[in-house]
Amino acid sequence: MTQYVYRFGGGVSDGGKGDSRATQARPGDVSERKALLGGKGANLAEMASIGLPVPPGFTIATPMCALYYEAGEQLPEDVRAEIAGGIAHIEAVTGHRFGDASDPLLVSVRSGARVSMPGMMDTVLNLGLNDATVAGLATASGDARFAWDSYRRFIQMYADVVLELDHGAFEEALEVAKEDRGFTLDTELSAADLQALVAEYKALVEAEWGKPFPQDVHEQLWGAVGAVFGSWQSERAKTYRRLNDIPADWGTAVSVQAMVFGNMGDTSATGVAFTRDPSTGANAYYGEFLINAQGEDVVAGIRTPQYLTRAAREMAGARATSMEEAMPAVYGELASVFATLEHHYRDMQDIEFTVERTKLWMLQTRSGKRTAKAALKIAVDMAEEGLISREEAIARVDPQALDQLLHPTLDPSAARDVIAKGLPASPGAASGAAVFDAATAEKWAADGKPVILVRTETSPEDIGGMHAARGILTARGGMTSHAAVVARGMGRPCVSGAGSIAISAKDKVMRVAGREVREGDTLTIDGSTGEVMAGEVPTVSPELSGDFGVLMGWADAVRRLKVRCNADTPNDARVAREFGAEGIGLCRTEHMFFDAARITAVRQMILAEDLAGRQVALAKLLPEQRSDFAAIFEVMAGLPVTIRLLDPPLHEFLPHEEADFAEVARASGLEIDALKRRAAELHEFNPMLGHRGCRLGVTYPEIYEMQARAIFEAALDVAERGDAPVPEVMIPLVATRRELELMKAVVDRAARAVFAERGRTVDYLVGTMIELPRAALRAGDIAEQAEFFSFGTNDLTQTTLGVSRDDAGRFLGQYVEQGIYARDPFVSLDIEGVGELVTIAAERGRAKRPAIKLGICGEHGGDPASIAFCEQVGLDYVSASPYRVPIARLAAAQAALKT
Amino acid sequence: MTQYVYRFGGGVSDGGKGDSRATQARPGDVSERKALLGGKGANLAEMASIGLPVPPGFTIATPMCALYYEAGEQLPEDVRAEIAGGIAHIEAVTGHRFGDASDPLLVSVRSGARVSMPGMMDTVLNLGLNDATVAGLATASGDARFAWDSYRRFIQMYADVVLELDHGAFEEALEVAKEDRGFTLDTELSAADLQALVAEYKALVEAEWGKPFPQDVHEQLWGAVGAVFGSWQSERAKTYRRLNDIPADWGTAVSVQAMVFGNMGDTSATGVAFTRDPSTGANAYYGEFLINAQGEDVVAGIRTPQYLTRAAREMAGARATSMEEAMPAVYGELASVFATLEHHYRDMQDIEFTVERTKLWMLQTRSGKRTAKAALKIAVDMAEEGLISREEAIARVDPQALDQLLHPTLDPSAARDVIAKGLPASPGAASGAAVFDAATAEKWAADGKPVILVRTETSPEDIGGMHAARGILTARGGMTSHAAVVARGMGRPCVSGAGSIAISAKDKVMRVAGREVREGDTLTIDGSTGEVMAGEVPTVSPELSGDFGVLMGWADAVRRLKVRCNADTPNDARVAREFGAEGIGLCRTEHMFFDAARITAVRQMILAEDLAGRQVALAKLLPEQRSDFAAIFEVMAGLPVTIRLLDPPLHEFLPHEEADFAEVARASGLEIDALKRRAAELHEFNPMLGHRGCRLGVTYPEIYEMQARAIFEAALDVAERGDAPVPEVMIPLVATRRELELMKAVVDRAARAVFAERGRTVDYLVGTMIELPRAALRAGDIAEQAEFFSFGTNDLTQTTLGVSRDDAGRFLGQYVEQGIYARDPFVSLDIEGVGELVTIAAERGRAKRPAIKLGICGEHGGDPASIAFCEQVGLDYVSASPYRVPIARLAAAQAALKT
Repeated sequence: MTQYVYRFGGGVSDGGKGDSRATQARPGDVSERKALLGGKGANLAEMASIGLPVPPGFTIATPMCALYYEAGEQLPEDVRAEIAGGIAHIEAVTGHRFGDASDPLLVSVRSGARVSMPGMMDTVLNLGLNDATVAGLATASGDARFAWDSYRRFIQMYADVVLELDHGAFEEALEVAKEDRGFTLDTELSAADLQALVAEYKALVEAEWGKPFPQDVHEQLWGAVGAVFGSWQSERAKTYRRLNDIPADWGTAVSVQAMVFGNMGDTSATGVAFTRDPSTGANAYYGEFLINAQGEDVVAGIRTPQYLTRAAREMAGARATSMEEAMPAVYGELASVFATLEHHYRDMQDIEFTVERTKLWMLQTRSGKRTAKAALKIAVDMAEEGLISREEAIARVDPQALDQLLHPTLDPSAARDVIAKGLPASPGAASGAAVFDAATAEKWAADGKPVILVRTETSPEDIGGMHAARGILTARGGMTSHAAVVARGMGRPCVSGAGSIAISAKDKVMRVAGREVREGDTLTIDGSTGEVMAGEVPTVSPELSGDFGVLMGWADAVRRLKVRCNADTPNDARVAREFGAEGIGLCRTEHMFFDAARITAVRQMILAEDLAGRQVALAKLLPEQRSDFAAIFEVMAGLPVTIRLLDPPLHEFLPHEEADFAEVARASGLEIDALKRRAAELHEFNPMLGHRGCRLGVTYPEIYEMQARAIFEAALDVAERGDAPVPEVMIPLVATRRELELMKAVVDRAARAVFAERGRTVDYLVGTMIELPRAALRAGDIAEQAEFFSFGTNDLTQTTLGVSRDDAGRFLGQYVEQGIYARDPFVSLDIEGVGELVTIAAERGRAKRPAIKLGICGEHGGDPASIAFCEQVGLDYVSASPYRVPIARLAAAQAALKT
Repeated sequence: MTQYVYRFGGGVSDGGKGDSRATQARPGDVSERKALLGGKGANLAEMASIGLPVPPGFTIATPMCALYYEAGEQLPEDVRAEIAGGIAHIEAVTGHRFGDASDPLLVSVRSGARVSMPGMMDTVLNLGLNDATVAGLATASGDARFAWDSYRRFIQMYADVVLELDHGAFEEALEVAKEDRGFTLDTELSAADLQALVAEYKALVEAEWGKPFPQDVHEQLWGAVGAVFGSWQSERAKTYRRLNDIPADWGTAVSVQAMVFGNMGDTSATGVAFTRDPSTGANAYYGEFLINAQGEDVVAGIRTPQYLTRAAREMAGARATSMEEAMPAVYGELASVFATLEHHYRDMQDIEFTVERTKLWMLQTRSGKRTAKAALKIAVDMAEEGLISREEAIARVDPQALDQLLHPTLDPSAARDVIAKGLPASPGAASGAAVFDAATAEKWAADGKPVILVRTETSPEDIGGMHAARGILTARGGMTSHAAVVARGMGRPCVSGAGSIAISAKDKVMRVAGREVREGDTLTIDGSTGEVMAGEVPTVSPELSGDFGVLMGWADAVRRLKVRCNADTPNDARVAREFGAEGIGLCRTEHMFFDAARITAVRQMILAEDLAGRQVALAKLLPEQRSDFAAIFEVMAGLPVTIRLLDPPLHEFLPHEEADFAEVARASGLEIDALKRRAAELHEFNPMLGHRGCRLGVTYPEIYEMQARAIFEAALDVAERGDAPVPEVMIPLVATRRELELMKAVVDRAARAVFAERGRTVDYLVGTMIELPRAALRAGDIAEQAEFFSFGTNDLTQTTLGVSRDDAGRFLGQYVEQGIYARDPFVSLDIEGVGELVTIAAERGRAKRPAIKLGICGEHGGDPASIAFCEQVGLDYVSASPYRVPIARLAAAQAALKT
């Protein structure tokens, strides 16, 4: 019989020991045990197996989740016996019995998927309480107030999670109870008050649910386990999975565990901690705790928690004592557990713990989520500490996350109108229009407007709006609040717990220090300092030395793929070279043509009636193009620069306004009517498949000849002053050997002419983009003429999939949702379709010309998954946009390490 | 040393014997000997080797042509000795000596490529005459007039061909000489008149050329051989090669042969003949001859020639005696030569002969060009005579040429306003606007206007215009005139020699029987009867029995590929079934949507804001689609019918006019402004790559569901009354397995629902078009869901080559001219690019589902070269437009015979 229930604690660990190698908190990168028991279950089993104090329990494995849905959202009856065995295990270890009216066992029921989905699925605590056992708990704990408070909490949570009743009514009843007695804090309520509240809660359940609150503890357990499996398909869980590429068929596990109580008086406490700072990566314990509280009090941000260490407390200037000061012995024990865990898992850990009457219990450990900056620092530190190798350090940093570090931060010298200060919950700076609800954030962002989402506190329902916002600001909640955790995961700057701010979502206004910020007013937040500023604050470029530089150095030492950039201007080229670009992989010449000063000459060229007319216009453009190329060559001196000759359909350059036509008429001496007629002739039904690319060169060779001449003249000019560039002249949209042969002849002829005029030469290559399926298939023939191939995977994706990037918006969203493409194929290469053509072309090209240089210059050149594919195929380089060059360097190193 | 000169005649045949198997007169299908000696040289060698009376001579082989161009358009000096050897051979056989003033040898110099290029290259006759030898010829022949006439002709021809002087001046001098003497015919000029004319001609040469006419006969020969090689690259030869797919690097051979004279008085004659009627294929000698004339007099159409046989003369009601009557002995000899040749070559022959003073000489034989009708009849007759096998008969008929037989002919019962009658030179009927020059014909045809090219006589310069015209009408020239031969080759209807018509090309008018036809007036010609009619005459469908039916029967017996049709209407389906279609391979449902009665409902569906709105419109369309399908199913009862679900971008159906918007607003209850906004939203930049095909089905499954329901309801309706159709439901534009899975589920659900409602079922298949490169590559996955693949090679060509068919006009012409694509890839499949994807998809599809049904439904399904490829890949069927179904049947048989 398949085993579904795995016990842990009390010297038992059915899940076995293993998983001692640290793993990344990224989908797909998990052990078999995590796949079976979920992250939480696997880690509980692991902690139990290495002797850490874990409350005993058992985990119902993930395959049960599928069975639950197959059975029409209910648990199969035959799992009851196994669950009973699990309860018996807990009873044996704790000495309490489930449903025992004199000394009851209480349990928690929690979800746990392969990868952490914080706050996405449901949890039930204090399960096992009923009208009989509440008295037993009071007796056994010697604390009637605690017993009735637990029962109250349990009914409320069970009603919410399992019975799916409206939780507002329960909160209101609690508020009324406090008001009636003139209290403000929950803790002021006496045992008797709480007992009365329980009676009220039970009446509420019966009124809304139609049945009395379940008193049978096994029925309670059965219901809670089912509800947790059921939460796997909640809307918010589905949204989270979609945003994080988590497959629906993984399912969740459910862990049932003996309750321990952090709310049993002042020798009890509960807390969350990271073994290092998840925001900066600093090697110092980092966390929060609350005395006499349950875990959800910390996470929910309802009470402001206390610091873990004295140092942190002092740095923050906080008064409330730290755990180090308040409970020195337990703190020492906790510190030793931290050390054990970090050495065991060889990674920074995110921990939940509870102290029950001075006894420390570990509730959870997992690889901690961290900012890119922290990931970088922790990886570099751990490698330097000898805990992990440099190769492991490289693998630990998600290249995509580097994006956070590479974008500008606030200019330190700029004036700041600071209106509030909160916690630096997720680093980076952002400006945008203040919006007060997630729906508006999504809507405005969809219209291209940057927004800052401002909320009293965030909840899982806000995920879409948080994703759409440039930054998040909350008035309540700590560094581990929902807002902080989610924002760090998304790489969004976040300031949390800015307590001086009063927010009215209804009136769409926030008030702070006598000032008002209304919806649409610009705000700036700095998630690295916690500052909130009115208006927009200028930014500066990121610092690329320190840990970043160290890790990049290690990455460069192991990667095989060269990294170039896509750059059309000297400025882009300069930024990219600073980011480590080793040349230009794609310099688009048409962007130069759009320059306001030149567009009239370009239009004159296009609209000319004949060769002579075109040549007049081309003569005007030649010196302009020459100086364009010279400026770029200077920045890239000594490095290869791939220049693509004119590619887009000519009609893209056409005049639209009357004034434009008049200007061209003046410049060319042609009639406006003739120009308009010619412009109309140039209209195309499918310009992407029209008269563009080398088809322009075949029909108007004089255009390519002018461009080639400009390239060689510029290269000679630059070579005279310093290092010569290595121009790689690229012919676009080739489908046949013959096209390239014809166009290569044009380029070679221009080179011979310029070299003869100047009496000097430069090295150059002539090659082609492979961006049509036919070109990939005929790569063998084409390689006879091509010295390099550059895979233009944007167009290759368009033609291979038959999808226009400009028109895909109408259906591509639905396509990804319905699982037709796993990701947008214009963002991450469609490896099994487009990728096969790339593989074919690489093989056939190399078979004909073994030394052929191969690169990729589509958007995919900056996408880590696509870069891994390029490494597999053995391309020579990838070319990415300037800001993605470091991402590509790191991804290339990771790809090299994987092969 | 490489041999370049090959002798023949007088018992010698250096070229050896061979080539006894008949070969098609099609490029690529030639023997090695023809490649070496050209068609004419090879046939002369062959005739010599089988003992036929051939004037002795030698052939300079085709490799010399390349050497001529390599040397900068001149002959290499070292070939002089070989040529001298050839001349010596002729001298030895004839007993005349080259340049001998007392009894000179005269020779002809003719071109001859691998395949016949009638009239395209130059010929020089009577070479060897000069001021001295002309006297010798007069003495030896005893006919001074003949000698001086030959010298006159030679100077004129040499001046034209070798010296490239304007031939108008010579013609004018001849006309003046006749006028001065009051003559109308050349034959009225005496020896003295001609001697004076020679003096005038020589003066003209010296004046224009700057040097006296060459008197050295070896210099004459050297010049003429060079000029003939030079004519290989003349503009008209290049045009002909391009139109007929003849490679430039084949080159021509040059044959030098002793002259024989048909103009040595009334016992001499010259003629051309076919061993069977090249127009009808009838097994009767067919030809023309002229007494006392040189060969060019017949071909040029200057004198109206006489019939060869008495029967032909009597049938035509002509007075001039036939050769059978005028020269019975020589005619008998000729008839025996015909029989020998036809049995030797096993094909109908096209022959040139000359009778010199009762002695018959064979100048040329080759496989005769013929009309499609004749090709069919000759192939069937020869197979039934036992001369060739049925398989050879199948191979003898060019499937493309069948097109001539399959199109409508003039309705015999329609009124005809016959204004003239000429020779039935090339069968078929055509109507169009009269035009009087080739350039206008090309221009108007390019604008989509059908034209009839009307010329006094045609010349090789007219080729482009003849190709562009629907039909050709000439006032002069016989059945073997330039116009007739070329028109038959092109499959254009032609009426030649309509002598009652007076044409003024300058004034753009023809006058006949007191009436005027001006440029642009509509004419109809019937190339099968020779009738010329004013206005347009209605047509009737062709007769498909007789020889056509016999050959089709033989073809059907050997072909493996099934042939279906592309048909969207019951009428198309009916025509196709009569033509032998074995089902429908592509029924496009969108064409039904354009119906005026339905377009409003279609527009309402497209412009609906939501599902409910679309469903209202779809409910209106369902009964319409059901009756569409039922009508087609009835025609195709018992046969498979592949129905493609809605494919084109929705905006193709959008309203354009205000009235259309108003109509949709009325039908849907929506505001006009909202409709216009929605219509604007539907605009696409690249609709070919946009929201179309199964993307419509994925986003709006209700559309495909309605169509599937209509198909199954119609199938059940038809099955109730007779044979059930076999619907094959085809999902367009699939790129992934998942798309097909989703859409197949929609279709299967509709089928289950309809079958349940009706309590009956029909067999059906669900499959997909393979029309995107990704689909071809992922054919293995897709075959898991697809029961058939239909290769949509139109779209597959567009995406594989990255060329939009709608926009390709701007460059595809230049692309074919520059040799980038050998033929328009939308007409003939790009086998090495698109073909590889078809091959990959077929292999991968079969590997996953061995029984998968494979077909092709692009335009290529009716193209013989593409069909040969489909046979190679092992597809199950091809689908062609109705009129091309017989072409596809024959091409499929030929393809099967070749494998």
